Amino acid sequence: MKIGVVGCSGRMGRMLLKEILDTPGAQLAGGTERPGSPALGVDLGVLAGGTALGVGATTDTRALFEASDAVIDFTSPEATVAHARLAEETRTPLVVGTTGMTPPDVAALRALANRVPVVFAPNMSVGVTLLMALTERVASILGPDYDIEIVEMHHRHKVDAPSGTALGLGEAAAAGRGIELSDMGVRVRDGHTGPREPGTIGFATLRGGDVVGDHSVIFAAEGERLELTHKASSRAVFAKGAVRAALWTRDAGPGLWSMRDVLGLKDS
Amino acid sequence: MKIGVVGCSGRMGRMLLKEILDTPGAQLAGGTERPGSPALGVDLGVLAGGTALGVGATTDTRALFEASDAVIDFTSPEATVAHARLAEETRTPLVVGTTGMTPPDVAALRALANRVPVVFAPNMSVGVTLLMALTERVASILGPDYDIEIVEMHHRHKVDAPSGTALGLGEAAAAGRGIELSDMGVRVRDGHTGPREPGTIGFATLRGGDVVGDHSVIFAAEGERLELTHKASSRAVFAKGAVRAALWTRDAGPGLWSMRDVLGLKDS
Amino acid sequence: MKIGVVGCSGRMGRMLLKEILDTPGAQLAGGTERPGSPALGVDLGVLAGGTALGVGATTDTRALFEASDAVIDFTSPEATVAHARLAEETRTPLVVGTTGMTPPDVAALRALANRVPVVFAPNMSVGVTLLMALTERVASILGPDYDIEIVEMHHRHKVDAPSGTALGLGEAAAAGRGIELSDMGVRVRDGHTGPREPGTIGFATLRGGDVVGDHSVIFAAEGERLELTHKASSRAVFAKGAVRAALWTRDAGPGLWSMRDVLGLKDS
Amino acid sequence: MKIGVVGCSGRMGRMLLKEILDTPGAQLAGGTERPGSPALGVDLGVLAGGTALGVGATTDTRALFEASDAVIDFTSPEATVAHARLAEETRTPLVVGTTGMTPPDVAALRALANRVPVVFAPNMSVGVTLLMALTERVASILGPDYDIEIVEMHHRHKVDAPSGTALGLGEAAAAGRGIELSDMGVRVRDGHTGPREPGTIGFATLRGGDVVGDHSVIFAAEGERLELTHKASSRAVFAKGAVRAALWTRDAGPGLWSMRDVLGLKDS
Repeated sequence: MKIGVVGCSGRMGRMLLKEILDTPGAQLAGGTERPGSPALGVDLGVLAGGTALGVGATTDTRALFEASDAVIDFTSPEATVAHARLAEETRTPLVVGTTGMTPPDVAALRALANRVPVVFAPNMSVGVTLLMALTERVASILGPDYDIEIVEMHHRHKVDAPSGTALGLGEAAAAGRGIELSDMGVRVRDGHTGPREPGTIGFATLRGGDVVGDHSVIFAAEGERLELTHKASSRAVFAKGAVRAALWTRDAGPGLWSMRDVLGLKDS
Repeated sequence: MKIGVVGCSGRMGRMLLKEILDTPGAQLAGGTERPGSPALGVDLGVLAGGTALGVGATTDTRALFEASDAVIDFTSPEATVAHARLAEETRTPLVVGTTGMTPPDVAALRALANRVPVVFAPNMSVGVTLLMALTERVASILGPDYDIEIVEMHHRHKVDAPSGTALGLGEAAAAGRGIELSDMGVRVRDGHTGPREPGTIGFATLRGGDVVGDHSVIFAAEGERLELTHKASSRAVFAKGAVRAALWTRDAGPGLWSMRDVLGLKDS
Repeated sequence: MKIGVVGCSGRMGRMLLKEILDTPGAQLAGGTERPGSPALGVDLGVLAGGTALGVGATTDTRALFEASDAVIDFTSPEATVAHARLAEETRTPLVVGTTGMTPPDVAALRALANRVPVVFAPNMSVGVTLLMALTERVASILGPDYDIEIVEMHHRHKVDAPSGTALGLGEAAAAGRGIELSDMGVRVRDGHTGPREPGTIGFATLRGGDVVGDHSVIFAAEGERLELTHKASSRAVFAKGAVRAALWTRDAGPGLWSMRDVLGLKDS
Repeated sequence: MKIGVVGCSGRMGRMLLKEILDTPGAQLAGGTERPGSPALGVDLGVLAGGTALGVGATTDTRALFEASDAVIDFTSPEATVAHARLAEETRTPLVVGTTGMTPPDVAALRALANRVPVVFAPNMSVGVTLLMALTERVASILGPDYDIEIVEMHHRHKVDAPSGTALGLGEAAAAGRGIELSDMGVRVRDGHTGPREPGTIGFATLRGGDVVGDHSVIFAAEGERLELTHKASSRAVFAKGAVRAALWTRDAGPGLWSMRDVLGLKDS
């Protein structure tokens, strides 16, 4: 199966190239970068940290979509929306790990998903996907006497808080409880807060060093705590999940799929 | 529903008395101690840390079984086997939290379970029961490239290692993987061990202070770790689970049940 | 040495009574409560969870100060200020664990401290006191390429955030760095925060269940994290520290002392 | 200052090359490998993951020592002993991070240390070095009612247990307590262990995934735990420490020094 990478020279892009080259059953269809990028023309094998393949990065995104059985996209919201149009015109499945997507951006993916399979997830690691499923399930089993708290730590360069993954975990917990996160989420505690309000879902954010991403969901009651934790030590887990998703689209129908669909965890 | 407590004056026994008195729908049928115990005759309400009830601890175990709709037993293996006989003669459901039970001891429970409901679990907290179910499930989903490690910490007075709960978590992980813990468990690492053998389940034991009980199951792969952790801060969670189990026997048929049955988590 | 307890019937008050009764070299001078308290007249031994002593709780605070070689006070800021006046009139050393003290309240203690020894600390456990000293020291050794983050978790009933102890740890870290916490503390992160500002000290707050108090100070750099953590499992550690402080005042001169002074950790 | 690297093509060797090239005030004197290594002749800049320098790896260790102001050695015990002889003949300071050194191997370093500065440490990260100093200090402050436990986790390829760093932390704790680790260390717990023996220092070992190295020292008493934790996320911290040690030898006299000497933490 031939897989293309748009935005192939950044940190994630290079990891995607490497992962495709390392995965049995996957072939690299090519890689593109935006006009003006210093990576244009650089050999894709070298970008992946290995030996030269004789194929360089180009700006011809349309040609890449035409040559690919699926395309992986970890770029920016605007670029992703443009790629969604190309995917629709060329009927190419799309795997999207872009973060910071607004509701209109997601609507563009939803439109595309009427025609081809689209996998969209803010965090494509197997571990986080499983953590989301476990969080929803535990929240549905444990009653409201278990307070739910979500804490995450990321490196000092991260610009948003809480992380998209932490918010996704909050959504999963709220779904398990049958409530809306927008009603019950508590994102800030400072000064005289009063006692914890029952049923709320609290967030806490830590930033420092080079932490790839730690997330914990805590269920705390009288006498006990149950904690579900994920620690990423390498961004390679995100690339691995994305390639797995791309391979999965081969047998998937049109639709906006999540990583829980890819891993078969939708109903757990 | 009338619930009796055998071994009612020890640390767990007192908590069981208190929990029964505090639980709507539960009534205290009485409490017994072994002959010679200094607690004989002491008011059960006072043992529970509250006001006097006008009923004292006795040695008449048979009368207790006759007066009870279910009996809770956190004593010793020998005492529990004797109680199982009384339970059979009086057709009384039995909830057993006794630890250190050998296979013949468990066989006595199994025989009883042909006649009445028996709930048997080394750890009756809701959180640990759920942790067991989650561990089995995660072990069945994540492939053998996720190494499984189990670490626990208990207070300095604990005399066995690893804890019964840690071993139970190991059994759950092995069941999820479709392997036998007796084949794949690694309980000791010291000196030149060589690289970790794939597929094994490792244990590590910490002892110190007054820790009620911390357990973690770690699934570690290239690039990520998923960790499931339970922290008990009070033995009351074990009493709470036992009373919940006793109430549950009202509508249960004969059988040797686990806390996962009581909580409806058998198939998760 | 005779030690008195003002506010002797609340959760901390009872623990203080018990700890004084259990500590060799300490004698219970008496205990008081505010007028109208249901505990008035109740035997102090019973309040402490043991056998009767033949002495009940009274409202006569002046008599208590006169009868005591030191008084322990975990009440409210207003009550503590009143007690400071009595301590001055009776020349009685005072140990204060009251939280929420404003600068004017502390000024009252400072005035008293010209005459008698006063120990004042928001957290009197040996472990937290040592954690404060370690935090200051590590912050002074590790350069600004180590980001400092402080995270705490407390039970659902706690009404302020971050905890007084977390703020004290932040002060210790700032002192080690030679900066002001008021300039560099970051108490809230939400939405688009931008990258972490170098030199700041971040706080994160978790609330849930019955957690007595967990605190971590994290020093995170490229490639490594050093974390200093304290977990309290029982409020008894605060009572133990307070009685230790009371005994320590016997040989101390006038002054406003901290638990670091009591433990001899001032210069570490 | 010119720094050489023996064993320059392995994982640590490449990191050392890179770190020397990246550190102001440090110059790369050259790199050697054992005869037959496929890295011989490969450009050192390329080995370091960067651009070519026009200098390749050689087998001429004597020439390297002659050209260097200090040499860094993360090889094997036998190779290190041979390098110590060359260092003596050429009067070159040596920085040794080799693990698994036996007492006779260390004796060879000690002999060399009569002539030139030698820095020897099983773990050269700033964080672990500080953790060692803190552990010794806390163990000296907290009495024997604080149980000491040391737990570590490393990747699945590690062949020894507990890690050299964990044992070093145990030595530091024992030194703080004024006891011998060989008398009081407990490296295995399995089956019926009986209650924890007071004054012992326990070890627990976890293995899995790609964990670079996590270490915790736990001081557990009634009512509280103090935990000191280090988490390495990149082996670069070891290279960074080694280069810092090499630069430090410039002003150091002969002697067998530790990283605590290099960081000025000897007396903390």
